Amino acid sequence: MTMSETGTIETMVMDICRAAKTAAPALAHAGTRVKNAALRAMSEGLRSRAAFLMEENAKDLEAGKTRGLSAAMTDRLLLDGARIRQMADGIEEVIALPDPVGGIERMERRPNGLLVGRMRIPLGVIGIIYESRPNVTADAAALCVKSGNAVVLRGGSEAIHSNAAIAEILREALFASGLPADAVSFIPVTERAAIDAMLAQEDSIDLIIPRGGEGLIRSVAEKSRIPVIKHYKGVCHIYVDEDADVAPSVRVCVNAKAQRPGVCNAMETLLVHEAIAPAFLPKVAEAMSREGVALRGCPETVRLVPGTVPATEADWGTEYLDLILAVRVVPSMDAAMEHIRRHGSLHTEAILTRDHARAMRFLREVDSSLVLVNASTRFNDGYQLGLGAEIGISTTKIHAFGPMGLEELTTSKFVAFGDGQVRQ
Amino acid sequence: MTMSETGTIETMVMDICRAAKTAAPALAHAGTRVKNAALRAMSEGLRSRAAFLMEENAKDLEAGKTRGLSAAMTDRLLLDGARIRQMADGIEEVIALPDPVGGIERMERRPNGLLVGRMRIPLGVIGIIYESRPNVTADAAALCVKSGNAVVLRGGSEAIHSNAAIAEILREALFASGLPADAVSFIPVTERAAIDAMLAQEDSIDLIIPRGGEGLIRSVAEKSRIPVIKHYKGVCHIYVDEDADVAPSVRVCVNAKAQRPGVCNAMETLLVHEAIAPAFLPKVAEAMSREGVALRGCPETVRLVPGTVPATEADWGTEYLDLILAVRVVPSMDAAMEHIRRHGSLHTEAILTRDHARAMRFLREVDSSLVLVNASTRFNDGYQLGLGAEIGISTTKIHAFGPMGLEELTTSKFVAFGDGQVRQ
Repeated sequence: MTMSETGTIETMVMDICRAAKTAAPALAHAGTRVKNAALRAMSEGLRSRAAFLMEENAKDLEAGKTRGLSAAMTDRLLLDGARIRQMADGIEEVIALPDPVGGIERMERRPNGLLVGRMRIPLGVIGIIYESRPNVTADAAALCVKSGNAVVLRGGSEAIHSNAAIAEILREALFASGLPADAVSFIPVTERAAIDAMLAQEDSIDLIIPRGGEGLIRSVAEKSRIPVIKHYKGVCHIYVDEDADVAPSVRVCVNAKAQRPGVCNAMETLLVHEAIAPAFLPKVAEAMSREGVALRGCPETVRLVPGTVPATEADWGTEYLDLILAVRVVPSMDAAMEHIRRHGSLHTEAILTRDHARAMRFLREVDSSLVLVNASTRFNDGYQLGLGAEIGISTTKIHAFGPMGLEELTTSKFVAFGDGQVRQ
Repeated sequence: MTMSETGTIETMVMDICRAAKTAAPALAHAGTRVKNAALRAMSEGLRSRAAFLMEENAKDLEAGKTRGLSAAMTDRLLLDGARIRQMADGIEEVIALPDPVGGIERMERRPNGLLVGRMRIPLGVIGIIYESRPNVTADAAALCVKSGNAVVLRGGSEAIHSNAAIAEILREALFASGLPADAVSFIPVTERAAIDAMLAQEDSIDLIIPRGGEGLIRSVAEKSRIPVIKHYKGVCHIYVDEDADVAPSVRVCVNAKAQRPGVCNAMETLLVHEAIAPAFLPKVAEAMSREGVALRGCPETVRLVPGTVPATEADWGTEYLDLILAVRVVPSMDAAMEHIRRHGSLHTEAILTRDHARAMRFLREVDSSLVLVNASTRFNDGYQLGLGAEIGISTTKIHAFGPMGLEELTTSKFVAFGDGQVRQ
């Protein structure tokens, strides 16, 4: 890329972000009925133009074949009739969610008669930087529209035709509903310079949410001058306490590891109290083995479950995203919590126990976006926790911690009703 | 400074920040009674060691004299008996505030029986970078301790002896109360390299709050790899609607401008509807003149108030922090809101009117951290809005928008109580 092309990309990205900022107030002040009508038009647009979407998607698949994309990557890229219907269904689920914007909370009368409250408002313009799956274009846009935010989307180069086609349909639907098309803006440039340019638009974009692998997220967080909500990885632990109920605990552990091993809320390390290890470990090892899970164990685990591959120091804190589980026997709950502090990722941790005091202490002291008692780590998900759809899971504590739903895409401003109050 | 000195400063700052992170869990899990006892010891320490504080403060005053510090700066630096008592009183006010940590909100039962809620928790380690006034050392530390956070303090070089002395007393009080002294950490280095080193400690510090002039805040925001809560400036507007009540509106405007002109929530620009301008402007001009306020007016203002200095384009959006007021006559509320959008700083805006519909529309559509109806802009303050003490005012929307009290120094994690739930 020449210098002047970089300059052209920067100018183009700046113009797109400014257009989104100009469109933002119209979306922020639109009522729920107007936003829902636009969402319905978006969903109908995707359904009625499925043939066009598949045509554009075919270009990406063709380019992927030329570049030798793996079968798994190609599958993630594919848009067929069923997946297009799923995207449209996803938008309709967002229509059904309550609108977080405009309500006033905690209205209180101050001693001088001033009535003070907090009104929930959109953040403004949200930038989403994502990889591969084209459905993110529709999912993210729907959540932003419903929460009154404009959005600037920058998808991966491998899905450029599919993403551009989805964005075009969504923009047409917004326009037809009387909202500005630029409230859903799309950066149609595959060069990485477009990301760098986007991350410098601090006057137009209020928040950046990267969705993808740890590499993408770290590089975005390092370069961005705009606040970034991060989710690096999920190294989730279950601690099986000395007072755990063996059979249900085995069931929860197998679910946490094996029900869907490739996702961030799957268990990666199992910590077992030494008093229960002789009774528990052989049973959980057998159940895991039936699911095809390979163990990497500490010396005590290897002793109790002969044939287990010994764990190395590198196994603690590893996010396998696979049918592999690290297992460690610990002398106490304190040791388990210390292990989590050193090797965890602040994502999801669970204790399995019948002891109330230890359950409550674990819940209070473990520093993770979701801490569970007697349930699977797989519940760290916006739908499962009752938020409706989610735009991602934050593992940093500023602004949001854990799954981010519609409310986490808003903030609140103070409002005050007076009758001539002055400060003394 | 030589390379090796820079290296030494970096190592020292890194060690201090790591020590704060190590101390953070003890503070996060301390109960309200323990934290309040520590705060009382901090307050008593300041009172009983007033002589030592004044001795150390004298060194800063002496150094300031040598460097030719202005009278205003010298006054800001001074610690006398009354100011030391004020600092101690400030800590006692924090004792009286409710502890935000540990409560669980929105506990709901999911269809599978899982009980899900959100537990309020501290952020972890907060970095405060501030200038001149030594009382910030005590104020900020007290708010962090009460909200369960460890804090790393880095004050201005002109107050280094005073700040170090205050920090020493606070640390001794923490230690005597059974909490780790490092929960209040202080960087005793005046070189700017210490700030740069602090802003790179993303593994130890969770949030940076800069307190000082716009220059300091911009430089911190640009360099930081840690999230920063910003407050650049307060260019506050009052819009006097065509249906305003003249006499009370004059009183509110004079209060907003003249009660304390040097602070961020003072009014800087007055916008007046053209229909009320002939009745309102001469009266407000007369009242302002009695308070020593000089006007800078648009052509219509100059016509209605002969002798007014004409405003230039540069006056719109200027934060005078002085007895100067920009005045503009506007043809409509839309024009006033457009002026605020272009020249405002998202800080504080007010409408003065008897018209309910316009009041509600202004409240909803103006994008500021506090929007008022019929009251002075001077109310944008943690005490006035009912938050108790404040650590600053955020004019960006991520995490907090407006005054930040104890609750804004916390976040929430999800907690879930199950009885063996697994994901289907």
